[in-house]
Amino acid sequence: MVFTTQEKKPIFQEESCRSSSFLPLKIISTGVSVPENKIYSAQLDQQLNKKTGYTEKRSGIQYRYHSDNQASQAQLGIKALNHALARNKIEPESIDLLISACAIPVQVLPYNAAHLLQLSCLPKGTASLDVNVSCVSFIAALHLAACLLNYGGYKRIAIVSADLPSRGLDWQDEESSIIFGDGAACAIVEKGGGQSGVLSYLSETYTEGIDLCEVRAGGTRCNPRSGMSDGDFLFRMNGKPLFKLASSLIEPYLERLLKASGLALSDIATVVPHQASHLSLEHMRKRLGVTSEALIDIYRFRGNQVSASIPTALHEAVVTGRFQPEKPVMLIGTAAGLAFAGMVLLP
Amino acid sequence: MVFTTQEKKPIFQEESCRSSSFLPLKIISTGVSVPENKIYSAQLDQQLNKKTGYTEKRSGIQYRYHSDNQASQAQLGIKALNHALARNKIEPESIDLLISACAIPVQVLPYNAAHLLQLSCLPKGTASLDVNVSCVSFIAALHLAACLLNYGGYKRIAIVSADLPSRGLDWQDEESSIIFGDGAACAIVEKGGGQSGVLSYLSETYTEGIDLCEVRAGGTRCNPRSGMSDGDFLFRMNGKPLFKLASSLIEPYLERLLKASGLALSDIATVVPHQASHLSLEHMRKRLGVTSEALIDIYRFRGNQVSASIPTALHEAVVTGRFQPEKPVMLIGTAAGLAFAGMVLLP
Repeated sequence: MVFTTQEKKPIFQEESCRSSSFLPLKIISTGVSVPENKIYSAQLDQQLNKKTGYTEKRSGIQYRYHSDNQASQAQLGIKALNHALARNKIEPESIDLLISACAIPVQVLPYNAAHLLQLSCLPKGTASLDVNVSCVSFIAALHLAACLLNYGGYKRIAIVSADLPSRGLDWQDEESSIIFGDGAACAIVEKGGGQSGVLSYLSETYTEGIDLCEVRAGGTRCNPRSGMSDGDFLFRMNGKPLFKLASSLIEPYLERLLKASGLALSDIATVVPHQASHLSLEHMRKRLGVTSEALIDIYRFRGNQVSASIPTALHEAVVTGRFQPEKPVMLIGTAAGLAFAGMVLLP
Repeated sequence: MVFTTQEKKPIFQEESCRSSSFLPLKIISTGVSVPENKIYSAQLDQQLNKKTGYTEKRSGIQYRYHSDNQASQAQLGIKALNHALARNKIEPESIDLLISACAIPVQVLPYNAAHLLQLSCLPKGTASLDVNVSCVSFIAALHLAACLLNYGGYKRIAIVSADLPSRGLDWQDEESSIIFGDGAACAIVEKGGGQSGVLSYLSETYTEGIDLCEVRAGGTRCNPRSGMSDGDFLFRMNGKPLFKLASSLIEPYLERLLKASGLALSDIATVVPHQASHLSLEHMRKRLGVTSEALIDIYRFRGNQVSASIPTALHEAVVTGRFQPEKPVMLIGTAAGLAFAGMVLLP
């Protein structure tokens, strides 16, 4: 991998470099939520009949959160929205669009943002829509929000990602059952004054990996009329080929994303990756050359929170002072599809 | 209702009127598809033990299309995409973003556009995402596409809506079971030369109507772990209160949509409504004052095709010469949520 550290130079020396496709965007607040039940890996050792320490070592996770089976996904999302509103004293009435950026919905009809809106304190009639690109939905939603704030007539947009993977875990499949945690996160965004914004955004999907990571039920494919089994509601992952495909594609993908931003990896102060797995975060460090200082890694205390991972990691960057003006940040992830999404932005 | 016919005046006399929020957008092709099985209302009379003529009279539908229970939703969507590509000899390689604008997905993970992409002739790695606002998903997707073409780096976007409501019909519920038909439609859009585009777009959701029209299963709410029954997979509609709520809100909504466009209803050459029901189309004519000449009404031969209704009606407008430069067109619909979306555009 050849992201060599370049000579230190002022970022955006040439104004022209930014003007061509720079999209003003300001993240004005973030918030997060998790369910009450903290599940330590030591508990899973017992549940799975393993020696103490096995699950933590295999998963790289000390604890993750699992909601009980009746808890509301939308309610968890609204807790994150309310957290983001409260942290910067933002009036609910000032939000003019609510975007749901979840991977799996509350139910198949109506769309997810309506369920979020129903439980929120946002005004009746607020515009709302769902954006979905599996685990990287938040990055896609952030890019759409930037376009909508600049040219779509909206002033302040709330993006909420909430997922409850615990509800679809297959406890017979050790590899996938120990790595997921429930959670939600929110970002509230405006156009801002033009100093902050999107330097590059890149979305690519390689469907040769479509069945390596999936939940088959819930739509027209597996239902009572077409035929289904309880197993169709469980998360299925074929970890090795999935990791092999993702890691064969991510290096040139990252080069394209950086090239479009006009920056080198060494210019990126903070990398906010999807918290897909222990292995994927190690890959970011060892193969892609992201330094431990730059990498936001909350995996040990959250696990893979599906669509909520990236905005939860973004919130972590914000509250730990690693999301600062003029210090470029990269959001990046791979997702069921197999989808890649990434964004380089100036906070 | 007070959309009085105004004196005939040149539309957009003042250039300034258009410049503030006009979003260039050109629909360069459209396409449609339906499954093979044409279901006449006379067949349903027999199936439901009714006198000949009952179903047609009650539903206002002569025939609709139902796929068999194993048919693929994504394949139906791809037939519509291929139709749109072929009609104007568009190279698949020229499409740089595929948007799925369906109400109900193929399965809950991965996102729907990946399933469409997999069966398409678009290049490996093509960007893709889902947009969902139930039955008005296509209008929301068209607005997002306009923003993305102007400012998001894309040159040519394909939007596909495909739904198979037949798979969730409750044959014990006469009201909803006789009105739905399966289908798919596609629009391919570019930025264009600036003569055509979006004059106004308005999205509003009123969640007091969220449970009047729903399919409860398929997500985190009803599944084997939280508890579910086969009935949760069926479409539930509470027709009377739904119609009452929608019709109490649509008149002021339509006024806001038109006001934002700078036009009066009499300036709109063609209205492309969601084909929700016989009653909703009658309401457009009788209460809102849309003339029969302006209204695209394909309900009699399609029924309610969920998200595919609006782009199928748009295709009908295109092929019957009612989508012409400088003749304003309005897309409008209400959807499960209860969501309203509308757009006034210049073809």
